[in-house]
Amino acid sequence: MSVDYQIHDLGNLTLQRGATIRDCKLAYKTYGQLSAAKDNVIVYPTWYSGQHYDNEWLIGPGRALDPAKYFIIIPNMLGNGLSSSPSNTPEPYNGPRFPQVTAYDNVRAQHRLVTEKFGIKHIRLVVGWSMGALQTFHWGALYPDMMDLLAPFCGSAKCSRHNYVFLEGVKAALTADAAWKEGWYTDKPARGLRAAARVYAGWGFSQAFYREQLDIKTLGYSSLEDFLVAFWEGFFLPKDPNNLLTMLWTWQHGDISDNEIYNGDFKAALRAIKAKAYVMPGQTDLYFPPEDSKFEVENMPNAKFVAVPSIWGHFAGGPGTNPVDVDFIDSKLKELLAS
Amino acid sequence: MSVDYQIHDLGNLTLQRGATIRDCKLAYKTYGQLSAAKDNVIVYPTWYSGQHYDNEWLIGPGRALDPAKYFIIIPNMLGNGLSSSPSNTPEPYNGPRFPQVTAYDNVRAQHRLVTEKFGIKHIRLVVGWSMGALQTFHWGALYPDMMDLLAPFCGSAKCSRHNYVFLEGVKAALTADAAWKEGWYTDKPARGLRAAARVYAGWGFSQAFYREQLDIKTLGYSSLEDFLVAFWEGFFLPKDPNNLLTMLWTWQHGDISDNEIYNGDFKAALRAIKAKAYVMPGQTDLYFPPEDSKFEVENMPNAKFVAVPSIWGHFAGGPGTNPVDVDFIDSKLKELLAS
Repeated sequence: MSVDYQIHDLGNLTLQRGATIRDCKLAYKTYGQLSAAKDNVIVYPTWYSGQHYDNEWLIGPGRALDPAKYFIIIPNMLGNGLSSSPSNTPEPYNGPRFPQVTAYDNVRAQHRLVTEKFGIKHIRLVVGWSMGALQTFHWGALYPDMMDLLAPFCGSAKCSRHNYVFLEGVKAALTADAAWKEGWYTDKPARGLRAAARVYAGWGFSQAFYREQLDIKTLGYSSLEDFLVAFWEGFFLPKDPNNLLTMLWTWQHGDISDNEIYNGDFKAALRAIKAKAYVMPGQTDLYFPPEDSKFEVENMPNAKFVAVPSIWGHFAGGPGTNPVDVDFIDSKLKELLAS
Repeated sequence: MSVDYQIHDLGNLTLQRGATIRDCKLAYKTYGQLSAAKDNVIVYPTWYSGQHYDNEWLIGPGRALDPAKYFIIIPNMLGNGLSSSPSNTPEPYNGPRFPQVTAYDNVRAQHRLVTEKFGIKHIRLVVGWSMGALQTFHWGALYPDMMDLLAPFCGSAKCSRHNYVFLEGVKAALTADAAWKEGWYTDKPARGLRAAARVYAGWGFSQAFYREQLDIKTLGYSSLEDFLVAFWEGFFLPKDPNNLLTMLWTWQHGDISDNEIYNGDFKAALRAIKAKAYVMPGQTDLYFPPEDSKFEVENMPNAKFVAVPSIWGHFAGGPGTNPVDVDFIDSKLKELLAS
């Protein structure tokens, strides 16, 4: 089977929490051409369970992320099934033995891709949705001199306690299924995946989204139950449970200051971000509420708070679900890139 | 074993959806003395999984609900383990065969208690938290000439679509456990109960509650994980799963207009409520957001919108968890009772 993406071989990748992934693979895809001066680079990390395909909605001719102008790199997150993951790693680090990976580990690996593979020294923009925003913040804090611009949207620089609790619910629902077998499943724990999907459904979109019946009136599902089955269960069922749990752990432990540079000083890590940033929460996002973004912006030297005026909850940010929100985000990225 | 409550025998109770509970029991407790004129009555229904004990935090000397002045009746909801429930009903309607009960059924049964048992013709106030608020709205719509005052807090007259989805997540988590056995469990499905508890944890309190670490700083838990285990799992584990699922169904299908009087016309049912009402949502309640209360108030002829200024989410309303909120609600009830 031919694939449409490339692999950067990281060799033995020693992780922040101590384990080493042997022969670690970073899957990525690029769009557009790297200029001779290597000054047209955009890095655009993936989100929870997403793969590079799921990021493409923001890229295109006439868009801010226009491949005619920019060289756009989408690195796949470790654990997402394309980069090294529980589902594709050989024994003994396969399945539930796949090690704990942090956003720090991911961004360190992405930095190697950008520098080792392409010889890139400077990045114009790092941008990402949700866990992609978490990685975007990490880029800014870990390599503050490397980029001009940052645009994290519908995400945070540190997993909040409430967000952590929401994810505990998703995890508990998935792992309540006996077929999960502590990760050593032989058959898909479908009941657990469906339960996780239903838990997620209340969080993904806002109260107002459901009140206005946008699942039916805009997205075209035939009923609320049809939306829960076709959209939500359909979204979770094809995904590998151990991959989901690996990325969930990454998300829960995301924190730009949890490393040897900032030693847990979150404000110091925010202050260190030099890039001009548009921090763009969804106005009705239930797990990345605008209040958390405001705190980040207040502590970043060169950031602007730009709420996405939308009742689409977390999905104001992606993945291209609502065209109106896509246009809003695209216009803000154009503004940022023009500055 | 002696009990501290009474049983009103409802005989054969035919339910709105068609089934009949034979020898149906309504458990209740009263506080204070019924006056000779029978004009000092307060009805105070229970909430999801709560029993009359769990309502007592709002009752006491010097409180609005003062037993020295009022005759307070707490009827236990059908399915709550004291009134007829899956856990205490004999074959063949036991366990998962316990029929679907609506809030309409509950309030019809409570009306029989109030009139048949006590000969009460007029009620001063109906008040309730959460599903207790749902029943309070039902009292107002089903018996509009019977009471002076209504005070539903942190609840709604109709289960919103988003609230329905949140409950789908709780249900899916509980029933993902193979030990649940479609309701024919022999051993407690502890894993499912714990999962349901963790799902609920993110909804019960607000983002700000967790951000401010009130679980530790105010409630005194030793860590977030301690709060999830000791408070949340501890809350769910003792409860009967079929009882929980019965009440969850009642909640999801709550709607004051879903009956032969209003035939689904929600605005007409709201307009029919004659009582002076304080509708009091929690300002940060994630599943009964103030917007839904505003809609209700706008369509009720004699209602006032009174948001509880609290970051305690749904628990701004109860069950007595935050003394500041208790005082606020108590003061508003005093104001209402004085009018």
